[in-house]
Amino acid sequence: MKDAKLVVKSESHRNTIVHLSDHVAIGGQKIVIIGGPCTVESLTQMETVAQHLQFAPVQALRGGVYKPRTSPYAFQGMGLEGLEILAEVRKRYEMPIVTEVMAISQIEEIAACADMLQIGSRNMQNFDLLKAIGQANKPVLLKRGLASTIEEFVMAAEYIMSYGNPNVVLCERGIRSFDPYTRNVLDLGAVVALKQITHLPVIVDPSHAAGKRELIADLSRGAIACGADGLIIECHPEPDKSVSDARQALTLDDMVNLVRSVKPVAEAIGRQVYEIQRPQLAIA
Amino acid sequence: MKDAKLVVKSESHRNTIVHLSDHVAIGGQKIVIIGGPCTVESLTQMETVAQHLQFAPVQALRGGVYKPRTSPYAFQGMGLEGLEILAEVRKRYEMPIVTEVMAISQIEEIAACADMLQIGSRNMQNFDLLKAIGQANKPVLLKRGLASTIEEFVMAAEYIMSYGNPNVVLCERGIRSFDPYTRNVLDLGAVVALKQITHLPVIVDPSHAAGKRELIADLSRGAIACGADGLIIECHPEPDKSVSDARQALTLDDMVNLVRSVKPVAEAIGRQVYEIQRPQLAIA
Amino acid sequence: MKDAKLVVKSESHRNTIVHLSDHVAIGGQKIVIIGGPCTVESLTQMETVAQHLQFAPVQALRGGVYKPRTSPYAFQGMGLEGLEILAEVRKRYEMPIVTEVMAISQIEEIAACADMLQIGSRNMQNFDLLKAIGQANKPVLLKRGLASTIEEFVMAAEYIMSYGNPNVVLCERGIRSFDPYTRNVLDLGAVVALKQITHLPVIVDPSHAAGKRELIADLSRGAIACGADGLIIECHPEPDKSVSDARQALTLDDMVNLVRSVKPVAEAIGRQVYEIQRPQLAIA
Amino acid sequence: MKDAKLVVKSESHRNTIVHLSDHVAIGGQKIVIIGGPCTVESLTQMETVAQHLQFAPVQALRGGVYKPRTSPYAFQGMGLEGLEILAEVRKRYEMPIVTEVMAISQIEEIAACADMLQIGSRNMQNFDLLKAIGQANKPVLLKRGLASTIEEFVMAAEYIMSYGNPNVVLCERGIRSFDPYTRNVLDLGAVVALKQITHLPVIVDPSHAAGKRELIADLSRGAIACGADGLIIECHPEPDKSVSDARQALTLDDMVNLVRSVKPVAEAIGRQVYEIQRPQLAIA
Repeated sequence: MKDAKLVVKSESHRNTIVHLSDHVAIGGQKIVIIGGPCTVESLTQMETVAQHLQFAPVQALRGGVYKPRTSPYAFQGMGLEGLEILAEVRKRYEMPIVTEVMAISQIEEIAACADMLQIGSRNMQNFDLLKAIGQANKPVLLKRGLASTIEEFVMAAEYIMSYGNPNVVLCERGIRSFDPYTRNVLDLGAVVALKQITHLPVIVDPSHAAGKRELIADLSRGAIACGADGLIIECHPEPDKSVSDARQALTLDDMVNLVRSVKPVAEAIGRQVYEIQRPQLAIA
Repeated sequence: MKDAKLVVKSESHRNTIVHLSDHVAIGGQKIVIIGGPCTVESLTQMETVAQHLQFAPVQALRGGVYKPRTSPYAFQGMGLEGLEILAEVRKRYEMPIVTEVMAISQIEEIAACADMLQIGSRNMQNFDLLKAIGQANKPVLLKRGLASTIEEFVMAAEYIMSYGNPNVVLCERGIRSFDPYTRNVLDLGAVVALKQITHLPVIVDPSHAAGKRELIADLSRGAIACGADGLIIECHPEPDKSVSDARQALTLDDMVNLVRSVKPVAEAIGRQVYEIQRPQLAIA
Repeated sequence: MKDAKLVVKSESHRNTIVHLSDHVAIGGQKIVIIGGPCTVESLTQMETVAQHLQFAPVQALRGGVYKPRTSPYAFQGMGLEGLEILAEVRKRYEMPIVTEVMAISQIEEIAACADMLQIGSRNMQNFDLLKAIGQANKPVLLKRGLASTIEEFVMAAEYIMSYGNPNVVLCERGIRSFDPYTRNVLDLGAVVALKQITHLPVIVDPSHAAGKRELIADLSRGAIACGADGLIIECHPEPDKSVSDARQALTLDDMVNLVRSVKPVAEAIGRQVYEIQRPQLAIA
Repeated sequence: MKDAKLVVKSESHRNTIVHLSDHVAIGGQKIVIIGGPCTVESLTQMETVAQHLQFAPVQALRGGVYKPRTSPYAFQGMGLEGLEILAEVRKRYEMPIVTEVMAISQIEEIAACADMLQIGSRNMQNFDLLKAIGQANKPVLLKRGLASTIEEFVMAAEYIMSYGNPNVVLCERGIRSFDPYTRNVLDLGAVVALKQITHLPVIVDPSHAAGKRELIADLSRGAIACGADGLIIECHPEPDKSVSDARQALTLDDMVNLVRSVKPVAEAIGRQVYEIQRPQLAIA
């Protein structure tokens, strides 16, 4: 990885910490958990999610408003209306928001109401988008491409950093393989390698990797034990009614249970999880 | 492929023919061969290429001016200056031009001087780009993603067609696999399948698939025998001096030999190749 | 491939020709076509196949009597009874027989009534079997493993040769990939590479690669155009009644049509096919 | 997996426990760790390994005496002489022995001095070997094939069980993929799935998956957190002098550290590790 200059770990730069808010940072001692539905569907849906997850506790909310769908006839996301929902939920629950940017033209509007801009797997080597996001003033969640090598993934982060944005978090989300049992193969060896090669935080998305909700909790604990700095997990008030990726969404109760089960694993390797921080909201 | 409405073959629409110029069409009885360097480097380079290839004969020229490179520090292409070179060569040699579009912002300027807009493998599921190119008034060369299924490939074409552009040519260019001997694995089974499923022309890029120039001629003949409607092949006046993909570029002489060797194979399956059409240029 | 000593092509050893009978040899100017059912089911079945295929003409018959099946409860082949059928058909129709050897203990009995011993994909790195077959006095058809690299494939042939058997024919039969549309991905780039690296004949099995009968004819012609020395194709008197691999078996009529369509492709690259050799049988 | 009858989990058979000795069992509450070199090289080597590892504590020793090597010219293992070394070490250190069986003819001699018979990845679908091992009266360690689906892996275990041997332990050891950074991709999703589908114990071999020693400790902890019942790890007194797989072998000290680090992770998910059981040896 001779061309990886800015992302590689060095004696003087061992660890990047990316702040999503005053209270939430990825890459430090604490494991960060991001949760929420695949797709933003309504304000009610997002409020239900936020209310439950704040006590898990989950530290940030995810939810897509621009959706990369294989078919042009599939629901493409709520767009601006969805962004307004995210902005509202963000304000009411004081939780940072992560949402996907699919095009350069969306960066400004999404940056106005999200705390972290996600680059999806299909766009990991959309180099013009990487360059543009490199000039945005927001943390970036860069997902690994469906069949990207570790080197290509590292170099995609190098694109973003070389254009001026140092706040990049890498996300392993499963790679393509021959086995139809799981949707993708979660490559935790890549997580270990990325933590050794780069100074960037690395989180894991077990939902898209597994594609089956019954596999997600075990894989989440495995990811944390491997050294991942956090998790991003799909959950939904009524998984079977989700407009997309229903098969892999957890119920909100399962999500809470999962988050709680992560704590002892994190502590077993000398890390911590976030504690519930806002009792006043908990009371309300 | 339940959602593939516009691209699927039917009794009433068995075959789409995409015209690159008055003389060159892809998808008919004649095999089309597109040749040229990976990257446009200079007017001299492109003229040398065009002069040789017109007598192969090659029917269209390729050459990248916006280059998707793994590293941000690698040469990113000549950009507008390269487009001017392409425009000049197109005019002098009356050969259609194929070149890659990496961003929505480039469509207009590239459409002004190219005859076919290429969507590269890394952007096969850059859906916003597909939608925009679907509104462009130029033929599109859609390359299969590095690890895209046949269904995903078909649906990417469906995006373009559903936004209004019927002139889509599919290009198989090798998929990711475990074997380091070849750069990718050329999937001619996909070519056969795509010809059966869709009415769109399908061409093959053996250069990126093989990654080694000594494999390209045999794979080219194999592709034609499988039913491909054409080939897109990298060649260079001095392959070892190519600024990119040097290992897979043919010399111009080897390119001419390859093109000539395709003729009997095409005829063996009841098709034809283009004959040299412009003797006056041959004399000059 | 530093350890590949015996299989690599050299100035003094450019081409191995493997004789299946006095009349049939693989690796020379003539393309060899081997046909027959996945599994030997009855004498009637095999006679029907032989009668039809001799006039295609097909040069050798295939048919499994020991079958590698994913499930222990699936039909495991007729065993010795099947071998007797093969011996009978071989004698009556004077056609060489190719059948699979799954265990060292089967070599002697199979060698007694077959002309070529097949090592299946799952056993490509069953090294003890390779060593034993290296000591057998029969030609070997070595199929590429489901996910074997070209180097591993070459080294498996080296095992056989290093134990004394020079008559090895390599067979590309598709590799594992992520796309469910085809059963495997036929890797014709490997065929081209193997012809360049080794002096051994290389044939192609499009049936197991494609897994769908409608893809097989085009892939067969593609394989020949790429330089393959022959084909091994599954066909059955009543494909839908085949006890295994029904979806990929051709009808006998389709098989005859396929064989005939190969002739012009072979000639287009300067090779020939076998002509029908036994008019007396044709009359009978 | 309709044909998986004996291996599938049911209400009445939720969990198989496989005993390697009076003291060591795989599949219960306790995590089992198996360690040792890739290849048995000498009695001194194996004694050094056993002395160190008994205090890690490691519960069983691994070491190959019949080695599946890509090249016929590579060291093929010590054979019978190696088996005698294993027998000697087994007696002196009272540690169960795991070693690979490559051929039916080796089963008897290996069963006489080993406690667990390993079927290697390349032989996972060597069905005749599976049938024979199904009739052996020893526990079996069945490694997943290099590109085997979960269903094929489960069915290979079904072969062994259907021939009479109920003591099968599954081992995930990485699958083939496109990324050259790691040797294979450790598929912990398969571990989770296998624990849900079958009642068999599942262990993980991070050494062959990673191929790089610096990745192994993190992957080991990840595997345990995912629910694996144990680990099998390569280590060597002098890794760089190992006759095979040197790059992935741990030093004995690193192995001890790894084992100790597993304890809190096991406890975090409600399991335990084995404690040192033989103080008299510890004193000596």
